[in-house]
Amino acid sequence: MSEYRFYHPIEIRYADLDAQRHVNNACYLTYMEQARLKYFQSLDLWDGADFDNIGVILVEQSCTYKSPIAYGQPIHVGVRVIRLGNKSLELTVSIRDRDTDQEMATGRTVLVAYDYVAEKSQSIPERWRETIKVYEGMA
Amino acid sequence: MSEYRFYHPIEIRYADLDAQRHVNNACYLTYMEQARLKYFQSLDLWDGADFDNIGVILVEQSCTYKSPIAYGQPIHVGVRVIRLGNKSLELTVSIRDRDTDQEMATGRTVLVAYDYVAEKSQSIPERWRETIKVYEGMA
Amino acid sequence: MSEYRFYHPIEIRYADLDAQRHVNNACYLTYMEQARLKYFQSLDLWDGADFDNIGVILVEQSCTYKSPIAYGQPIHVGVRVIRLGNKSLELTVSIRDRDTDQEMATGRTVLVAYDYVAEKSQSIPERWRETIKVYEGMA
Amino acid sequence: MSEYRFYHPIEIRYADLDAQRHVNNACYLTYMEQARLKYFQSLDLWDGADFDNIGVILVEQSCTYKSPIAYGQPIHVGVRVIRLGNKSLELTVSIRDRDTDQEMATGRTVLVAYDYVAEKSQSIPERWRETIKVYEGMA
Repeated sequence: MSEYRFYHPIEIRYADLDAQRHVNNACYLTYMEQARLKYFQSLDLWDGADFDNIGVILVEQSCTYKSPIAYGQPIHVGVRVIRLGNKSLELTVSIRDRDTDQEMATGRTVLVAYDYVAEKSQSIPERWRETIKVYEGMA
Repeated sequence: MSEYRFYHPIEIRYADLDAQRHVNNACYLTYMEQARLKYFQSLDLWDGADFDNIGVILVEQSCTYKSPIAYGQPIHVGVRVIRLGNKSLELTVSIRDRDTDQEMATGRTVLVAYDYVAEKSQSIPERWRETIKVYEGMA
Repeated sequence: MSEYRFYHPIEIRYADLDAQRHVNNACYLTYMEQARLKYFQSLDLWDGADFDNIGVILVEQSCTYKSPIAYGQPIHVGVRVIRLGNKSLELTVSIRDRDTDQEMATGRTVLVAYDYVAEKSQSIPERWRETIKVYEGMA
Repeated sequence: MSEYRFYHPIEIRYADLDAQRHVNNACYLTYMEQARLKYFQSLDLWDGADFDNIGVILVEQSCTYKSPIAYGQPIHVGVRVIRLGNKSLELTVSIRDRDTDQEMATGRTVLVAYDYVAEKSQSIPERWRETIKVYEGMA
């Protein structure tokens, strides 16, 4: 767990289950999205209210499913920025059981800094870059 | 079926199922919403694109669950406006099997004409009123 | 708030929002379902694991939308059984802001005791009846 | 489009949109799942009814987001098996506009043949292997 400074807890909802009686695969991405936004909010990079200034757009993500997640399972989602490019940033994500620390899934997400009003990509704002570098202890 | 002029087909998605292996109860409202919007689009009351001019806000709805809906079941949703008030309109909704005509659920929805930019209710626009009256054969 | 003994907190997920930038109407039922199941779990009437022994089936529900719910809003859902029939039970539900106590929506839910293995309704088990009566202080 | 023999149409639901007013990223996986199951059903490898004999479990998937998908956009999802291992199979997926053929997203999915009753992986059944080889024209 030491590689993630940030974890966000998720309550599994009954509606997240599918006919296999475990969490549906698409919900893993919903959990990752929720944790990712809370990460940016915790670093004061997004205010949680202005949807035209959310700052980034998703361009790629992957998920490796390691173990089915059950209703009632106490999970949390670790989020960490591992790369800051000129316009893009890359995150790793880990869905874990809060009690046993079992890793249920891992993910990788690539975002691009985006101006939603102008509808075009942009360089990562200096404030984002500095805040994330400090938080993650990046060189 | 004769009481509904408008029906919209819905494909059940695997992700709509829950651990009971039938369509989750909240998805019935998603189906109703989808059919309701297609109804307004078919009457040229909403263009399907401008989310600040969708014209109505939901204030109340109910659903009676008559039979579980299975993956693969060919359903469609009937929508009909049954009352036009000054500011509010009321719809009935019927989810049916397209093959057997079995009614799986019924619903009732109350909408209020709403100006999303000004964030306040308004009288139902005359164009809405006339279009719906003609379509539904209301007095 | 005094009329509800049981409240369950819900975290609004970004994915619960729709193009109106508030919680989608169908999600209100997901919140109600989640709180209802946690209510039954808290009374030890369902173990949260055996989906063939969940004991009840949903037959009717309604929701009155009083105010839009925003991302990040700290809500909880009150659940209370208000009527115990022979086979059916009726609940009221209240979605409220935990900080301001503003009521965002109210709901009413009718469940029928159901044997999922035999696929038929049944009388409410005596254990359910007694447990709920005591918890809710019903005559 | 020629690389995909199988396409499944998806109707965008209003509830699939999020606060960015385009289809939420997790829904892309729901679309892929729906098309994938229809692919297996079309090849008569799954009957669409027996959830304990669905035959495969998801172990990995990725999605590259190329362009936002709008409400009302006529999309379909191409599915193709590109690799058959001993226990695993790999698919590529393409979400495209049916009118313009614009590719909105691509995906890659790794499944493992799985016995849900015994809860363990298994070799891909010979019938699956032969059916898919013939359909995809694999050596």
